[in-house]
Parts: sequence; structure tokens; C-alpha cells
Amino acid sequence: MEISRFQALMSELYGEQDAARGIPATVAWLCEEVGELAQAVRKGTPDQQLHELGDVLAWVASLANQLGLSLEDAAARYRDDPPR
Amino acid sequence: MEISRFQALMSELYGEQDAARGIPATVAWLCEEVGELAQAVRKGTPDQQLHELGDVLAWVASLANQLGLSLEDAAARYRDDPPR
Repeated sequence: MEISRFQALMSELYGEQDAARGIPATVAWLCEEVGELAQAVRKGTPDQQLHELGDVLAWVASLANQLGLSLEDAAARYRDDPPR
Repeated sequence: MEISRFQALMSELYGEQDAARGIPATVAWLCEEVGELAQAVRKGTPDQQLHELGDVLAWVASLANQLGLSLEDAAARYRDDPPR
């Protein structure tokens, strides 16, 4: 899946909820998901880790949507001028 | 860019460093980047926010590489069976 498609999908699925929640609450929720990912990495199964990786991606995309920014553009920096 | 291509790019660029650092240190670094993203959202410019979104994506991909998991598979759940 294209990164841009995934971001658009998050907008279709959750755009209304995201807008109602607002940006600070989305940051808080992203942090919660990162915590769940950290826990799954430490003591979860691969399936649980995959689940949490997906959730973190989803919340990063929801945050980008609310900020009006493109994850495709964000990723492109690593293709065009990767930090070393 | 395909999600799978982005993940492969992270492996090409940073796979060796990632393996040397190990998984717990990668989780720690991801958390640091999430903190930088939170700060950029609160008081940064759109360019800074875009930069930090890219960094978080990169660290999520590096973590997935070390776990041997596919971000494409992780994202596919939101296409095939999105949580509501």
C-alpha cells in the first residue's frame, strides 16, 4: 500500500472522530499506543507486535491528517536526503 | 512510496546500525522521537512537524525490521478489518 493511501484511509475511517478529539488528545493517544508497542516488544507475541505496529502507524497518520501534513513527504526525506 | 519500500529503505540505510544497537535501544530511541514530535506539534513549525513525523516513521520501520515484521502487513489490517 502507498503511504499516501494509508493516510487517506485513516482520514476516511477516522477523520470525523479525529477532528472532534483534537490534536493534543491525538498526541496523547499516540503515546499510549507507543507504550503498548513497547510492551508487546518486551513480552508480546509477533502477532501482538504486528497489531501494535499497525496502531502506531494509524495514530501517526491521524495526527498528520490533523496537522494537514503528508506522511509521503515526511518519508521522502529518507529517500532523498537520509540522515546519517 | 509503498510502505514496504520505505521499510526496505530503512533496512538498507540503517540495518547494520540497528542490529548493533539492539531492540530495547531502538524502542528507547523511538520514544525519544515521539517526544520530539509531541514538542513540534505543540510549538514547532509545519516543517519541523513534518521532519519529526518522518523520524517517527523511520524508527517504527527500524523496529519492525529488527522484529522481522512487515509494516505493510500491519497497515493491511486497517484496510481489511479496521477497528471502529
